[in-house]
Amino acid sequence: MRPRLQVALDTLDMPSTLGPLAKCVDEIDVIECGTVLLLAEGLSAVRNVRALYPDKTILADVRIAEAGAKLSRLCFEAGADWVSVVAGASLTTVEQVVKVADEFGGEVQIELGEDYDADQARKWAELGAKHVIVHRSRDAEAAGTLAWHPEDVARVHELAEMGFTVTVTGGIKADELDTFAGAPVGVVIAGRAIVAAEDPAAAAHTLNEAIARVWGEDA
Amino acid sequence: MRPRLQVALDTLDMPSTLGPLAKCVDEIDVIECGTVLLLAEGLSAVRNVRALYPDKTILADVRIAEAGAKLSRLCFEAGADWVSVVAGASLTTVEQVVKVADEFGGEVQIELGEDYDADQARKWAELGAKHVIVHRSRDAEAAGTLAWHPEDVARVHELAEMGFTVTVTGGIKADELDTFAGAPVGVVIAGRAIVAAEDPAAAAHTLNEAIARVWGEDA
Repeated sequence: MRPRLQVALDTLDMPSTLGPLAKCVDEIDVIECGTVLLLAEGLSAVRNVRALYPDKTILADVRIAEAGAKLSRLCFEAGADWVSVVAGASLTTVEQVVKVADEFGGEVQIELGEDYDADQARKWAELGAKHVIVHRSRDAEAAGTLAWHPEDVARVHELAEMGFTVTVTGGIKADELDTFAGAPVGVVIAGRAIVAAEDPAAAAHTLNEAIARVWGEDA
Repeated sequence: MRPRLQVALDTLDMPSTLGPLAKCVDEIDVIECGTVLLLAEGLSAVRNVRALYPDKTILADVRIAEAGAKLSRLCFEAGADWVSVVAGASLTTVEQVVKVADEFGGEVQIELGEDYDADQARKWAELGAKHVIVHRSRDAEAAGTLAWHPEDVARVHELAEMGFTVTVTGGIKADELDTFAGAPVGVVIAGRAIVAAEDPAAAAHTLNEAIARVWGEDA
């Protein structure tokens, strides 16, 4: 199945986000209100995006670490479909967030940290978390290394076999997606590659063309 | 030394916070913009409180888990003196936040989670984190048990010996503070006990009287 394209909005205020978003939104499946934007603007960011794009999937990338029930409820009430939880959160917190998500027909996304533990991931799946996010090795990203590590690709396979929708992120460029050919990627995130592009719609379109080339056209 | 009194603001919007805060602020040493308030309102919460109370210490309880440099910088720029980091954050994240805090003359507070690891706490101290928060056992709080566990008090002693300012929190009432007599508590947090009180100033004053009774009058 063709991965969905998610745009990460991590600007410092609403207007800087709404301009590029309006330009690229027809090419986008999932709109992420990023951690930085949420800290800067609060949940009005989610409410504004929901008001403008009632039919899009919205992730509130709030990175819940504690107080899962309370924080996730606020996100879903503001209009989010997905909320994120950090890998370091306790299983109790994951369980609480899944319970609230179920109430709203929403889903829970776990952000893998620097350590990866397959047994822990299996527990998240058992608790009902639906998504995981695989980051490109941050060292590799900082070093500007184009290639993903083979372990990253192996991890995508392993997590998809556990039943997760797997998101990949970390400065992804269109010409790097071939690395994931044949891998069950569920969502591809691009942030500045779209939002900071001179032509956000063209940048998103290029990513969608690369996705279609690597995974085929069927949505 | 007499512990400072910190009020935790965890309402869902600015007006519900500013009313009670204005009433109690003369009794308060540290104003906490809580995680819920920050999620709801964004950093304008910190900016508004800073504008109103330029001389108070402000904690942005943002519970940083990742992206420490970026998120903490936003908090300090908005006017926070202290920012919080979750115990599950990597040491790299703690180090990044300490570095940014030093730039602003701010301080970093680590929120202990359900697991406590003295060796990890020593590493935070080595990295330059100045504060830790000890929560009352959440089970005890949920069960409405008045007493803190003796382990909680022992932990306060151990962490203070490592050089931390130790904050205690978890539905603290004035008549429970005797449990900590002789313990080097640096900050006592009260949230709803003040903010939801009919007379927030009187509630804060009662807590300050209890603090003076248990630790003495010297500030």
